[in-house]
Amino acid sequence: MNRHIGKQTVVFEKPPIIRGAAAIGGVKEGKGPLFEYFDTVLADDKWGEDTWEKAESKLQKEAAVMAIKKANLTKYDIDFILAGDLLNQCVGAHYGMRSLGIPFFGLYGACSTMIEGMAIGAMLVAGDCAQNIAATTSSHFCAAEKQFRLPLEYGGQRTPTSQWTVTGAGSAVISNVGKGPKITCVTAGRIVDMGISDLNNMGAAMAPAAADTLCRHFKDCGTSPEDYDLILTGDLGAVGGDILSELMKGEDNDIRERYNDCGRMIFDAKEQDVHSGGSGCGCCASVLCGYVYRMLTEKKYKNILVAATGALMNPQMINSGETIPAIAHAIVIKA
Amino acid sequence: MNRHIGKQTVVFEKPPIIRGAAAIGGVKEGKGPLFEYFDTVLADDKWGEDTWEKAESKLQKEAAVMAIKKANLTKYDIDFILAGDLLNQCVGAHYGMRSLGIPFFGLYGACSTMIEGMAIGAMLVAGDCAQNIAATTSSHFCAAEKQFRLPLEYGGQRTPTSQWTVTGAGSAVISNVGKGPKITCVTAGRIVDMGISDLNNMGAAMAPAAADTLCRHFKDCGTSPEDYDLILTGDLGAVGGDILSELMKGEDNDIRERYNDCGRMIFDAKEQDVHSGGSGCGCCASVLCGYVYRMLTEKKYKNILVAATGALMNPQMINSGETIPAIAHAIVIKA
Repeated sequence: MNRHIGKQTVVFEKPPIIRGAAAIGGVKEGKGPLFEYFDTVLADDKWGEDTWEKAESKLQKEAAVMAIKKANLTKYDIDFILAGDLLNQCVGAHYGMRSLGIPFFGLYGACSTMIEGMAIGAMLVAGDCAQNIAATTSSHFCAAEKQFRLPLEYGGQRTPTSQWTVTGAGSAVISNVGKGPKITCVTAGRIVDMGISDLNNMGAAMAPAAADTLCRHFKDCGTSPEDYDLILTGDLGAVGGDILSELMKGEDNDIRERYNDCGRMIFDAKEQDVHSGGSGCGCCASVLCGYVYRMLTEKKYKNILVAATGALMNPQMINSGETIPAIAHAIVIKA
Repeated sequence: MNRHIGKQTVVFEKPPIIRGAAAIGGVKEGKGPLFEYFDTVLADDKWGEDTWEKAESKLQKEAAVMAIKKANLTKYDIDFILAGDLLNQCVGAHYGMRSLGIPFFGLYGACSTMIEGMAIGAMLVAGDCAQNIAATTSSHFCAAEKQFRLPLEYGGQRTPTSQWTVTGAGSAVISNVGKGPKITCVTAGRIVDMGISDLNNMGAAMAPAAADTLCRHFKDCGTSPEDYDLILTGDLGAVGGDILSELMKGEDNDIRERYNDCGRMIFDAKEQDVHSGGSGCGCCASVLCGYVYRMLTEKKYKNILVAATGALMNPQMINSGETIPAIAHAIVIKA
């Protein structure tokens, strides 16, 4: 029997298996340090489509198709696909998955969506409600800038705390049988809002949510940072990552020796002019399903804790005087 | 053990219980035929807030708080809350749930969100991953018109096929113990797009998705329409409901004798000038958690099949030449 322990954590009696994973990177991501771990790197960020949004849909579909193939399954084997993205009404997922005919659950967790989908999917598999699920998400720099900040043509100056939305996608297939790294536990996040309202400082808005989930995870599980060989956040970037490290130190959970962030890993911050690092649903998705998944299958990582963070505002709420609520969902993956 | 049967259906070994439910209606909804079944009816659709979006957040929070209370639980008993809405980046749910501190999973299923949340929530409970969950959603006429169609101030003429987005919210608490109607089975929907692109004819866009899910449900379960005393759709309205009835007849599943639609039930179409009927996440949510839940607890309905439909586009995708993908998720509830 699965066990709901502590306040926010579920431990699986029979841990579901990440049987396959695929990652796609955009042009800029393909020039970054993780280029060799993407299954596909785009030569052009529109990928033959006439809008960025349609290109993002294609990213999501192709990532799912590749992950299912790499899991040695067909689309008919997938009981549910759980997907979402940053676009208004999650149209990246909806138009992307439209042609697949797989039973679909739409999620919105902003940049936490990859782990939200893997967490819910793992629970459905572990609870005998599905044999195979796919969790998929994407983001696209051009579509995100237009929607959340300023038109690209405006050429606005970026602040030092700003992050660069990754053009990319990732998909993971989670099964009750097969070979691969296992999801042993899920810690679901709560919404945390510490009053940040700067749309160019998402890392600061999301770091307290990550701290809340990580502290809760250690408490629920009776573990400490030393029990993991990697503690990975989704896209806090350099600024948010430093804030998280400080917050965790204050809670007597010093993570610095084993901590990294997907937004720091995907770009070479200095060479690629991304300021605080990468962000977007596609950041955690493509790093986790590309580089990190490879390291797990090669047993270079054995026991990792991954928390993806999401900023849950929209620009209109900020314009009407609101602050940025954030969330972080975490899973433990064992090689 | 829960069983995944047929292609899209999960049958529960120990059916989760809808232990409490609460519904809120807006001003217009409070003048409709179901007024006495709402727990709260608004006197003013801004409900003391300074924007419609903040009012929608409050709708969602208050519905959840009431449902948890009616289930004789506290917020500390709720393992996960699953919520979403139509607003860009689902801010109704995020700002509404921010102060509750309950572990949160954000969903986007457009007007299918209520049943999507109840379906996933029921699977989490049935799979021993949670003891109590809450599924919550909302919509607000003014916020939805502004975002999806035209500013209200423009005073645009409405087409005969158009539907009126419900101002309202509903929340249901689903548990592994307690008293109440039970969710015996879930049929997850697939994305279906039959080429409709008229934002004022959502019923026509969504009816084929409802037909797909209902036919699949009957096939997976080996049941037929006569096995249910009510077959209810979320918000196809009059136009979409008639299309669904025709489509089902063509598939040898004549549902007309026991079919109704929340969008038809919530308003008096002639007196309240709503054209094809009600729509929005709050339509299915408030009708199901108000009137239908009451009928179930009073055993006036004994075995019902509820399918909520969602249109998964955004205006920008339609403006760039796309059509409307749609989905329908179904659950069976037994008194």
